[in-house]
Amino acid sequence: MKFLTGELHGKIFIGLVVEENLVMDLKKAERKLFELETIPSSLIDCMKEGQRFVNHVQQLTEWAKKPNDESGSFIYSLSEVRLLAPIQRPLKNIFCIGKNYRDHALELGSEADIPEHVMVFTKAPTTVIGDGDNILAHQDVTSELDYEGELAVVIGKQGRSISKADAMDHVFGYTIINDVTARDLQSRHKQFFLGKSLDASCPIGPYIVHKSQIADPEHLHIETKVNGELRQSGNTKDLIFSIPELIETLSRGMTLEPGDIIATGTPAGVGKGFNPPKYLKSGDQVEITIEGIGTLSNQVK
Amino acid sequence: MKFLTGELHGKIFIGLVVEENLVMDLKKAERKLFELETIPSSLIDCMKEGQRFVNHVQQLTEWAKKPNDESGSFIYSLSEVRLLAPIQRPLKNIFCIGKNYRDHALELGSEADIPEHVMVFTKAPTTVIGDGDNILAHQDVTSELDYEGELAVVIGKQGRSISKADAMDHVFGYTIINDVTARDLQSRHKQFFLGKSLDASCPIGPYIVHKSQIADPEHLHIETKVNGELRQSGNTKDLIFSIPELIETLSRGMTLEPGDIIATGTPAGVGKGFNPPKYLKSGDQVEITIEGIGTLSNQVK
Repeated sequence: MKFLTGELHGKIFIGLVVEENLVMDLKKAERKLFELETIPSSLIDCMKEGQRFVNHVQQLTEWAKKPNDESGSFIYSLSEVRLLAPIQRPLKNIFCIGKNYRDHALELGSEADIPEHVMVFTKAPTTVIGDGDNILAHQDVTSELDYEGELAVVIGKQGRSISKADAMDHVFGYTIINDVTARDLQSRHKQFFLGKSLDASCPIGPYIVHKSQIADPEHLHIETKVNGELRQSGNTKDLIFSIPELIETLSRGMTLEPGDIIATGTPAGVGKGFNPPKYLKSGDQVEITIEGIGTLSNQVK
Repeated sequence: MKFLTGELHGKIFIGLVVEENLVMDLKKAERKLFELETIPSSLIDCMKEGQRFVNHVQQLTEWAKKPNDESGSFIYSLSEVRLLAPIQRPLKNIFCIGKNYRDHALELGSEADIPEHVMVFTKAPTTVIGDGDNILAHQDVTSELDYEGELAVVIGKQGRSISKADAMDHVFGYTIINDVTARDLQSRHKQFFLGKSLDASCPIGPYIVHKSQIADPEHLHIETKVNGELRQSGNTKDLIFSIPELIETLSRGMTLEPGDIIATGTPAGVGKGFNPPKYLKSGDQVEITIEGIGTLSNQVK
């Protein structure tokens, strides 16, 4: 199940990818097939309903497969839909994990930079853009704009003091994030927040893939290309702190809520890691692909 | 104009302190006096209306002063109202400024810790509690819980790339924040976020005082007492980075929005600054008083 937030003819809807190039408008399908209106209008509200929502969508998918005169009214071609960030406006800052791949910690520093404890910073919700939207270059603010391809975990169930053993129960699914970073601001201001929170510096998407579709989230190939050139090529098996460890550490005294997004860190190959650095410039096309999720593509403007 | 969010007989309302011990329920007063229902239900939505909201409240206050049979129905005694955080659920993390008083930077380190550039970190919205609510001790998570009394600026008008000269136009008013910090988490995890984001570690209130009532926000006495013992005694004139500088820096590439909260930093006298340190323990009563705003009082439990 790949969920998306889309826009068609000026209307925003929650969609499910039903075939390679087809998307089902969930609320519309529910109305036509079941004569019901129970599906909420935002993916966060859907996730709050937990397994009930997932079961309902599965039922809907079964029904939609039957020969149906009306399916044209709720199944669209993906090419006619504008993809928005699956969560357009997170209800809090996005949680980001710093230096969670050994090779990335090394490319930015030395052995001493490999963290012993989880390092967490945040990106403001005003950073969020969708697949195909422009990453703003902010040339008046930064001359060191960089990309960071990352697997992101989306929380589906509220909890505090979640143990590693229970952590995966609290996951709804996975998506891709480009944790775009102004390196000059990041180092000048010591704490990472300012360098991580420029407007339009957090592409998310294109889909949130339900956890049932990902056999092992810690065995996914992840790669980032800039103008077609392969820059990052990693695998989530190399995460220093695993997804359950991240959830356990974050929730130790802090409540996690449905719709919370945790960007799990980036592998080696960021612009700053090259000599000389390969920072982003206006016109650059950044594509991040994660196995089983898709490709998140954005141009810098 | 001192605004509050209060609860009376299980109902949440937006209030204005009209005399020392009286509070006016703004929506109810509007209904009774003007037969109108224009005032939104949350202070953030009120602020979004800008000067129109402030003018409307002024009109309402004038009317309410006239002899009025019905005033009993919309004017309450403050003592019967439960004060909630004026903004119960911020729409993003709270912006916090690190080491913005010279003496505080020194008490935690040395001259080298006095920042050359604004240092920004955040607290999750799940940290927010109101005046009188309990600060959670989180004894299983931290043994170094500390207080930080701070003046907080509340943004009233959206903007990006706001100049110092225009900054005060974007301010709605001021409140008090206790930036409760788990010092052990703060240092162990390098980036401050985790140590700053335990549930119930951000008392806010009791009021948001409109900027028109504060002649000079950078000349306010601020003090923190723990169990009656004076620990912090400072003045906002000693801020290293002024309020306009903070707004200019934060908004450089990042949009500020109505309801955004900026905690401006804490003066010297935090628990960690004493030798031996004076950390908070269950039962401690923390009171922060800022001239012209009021006293924010919370017990650790």
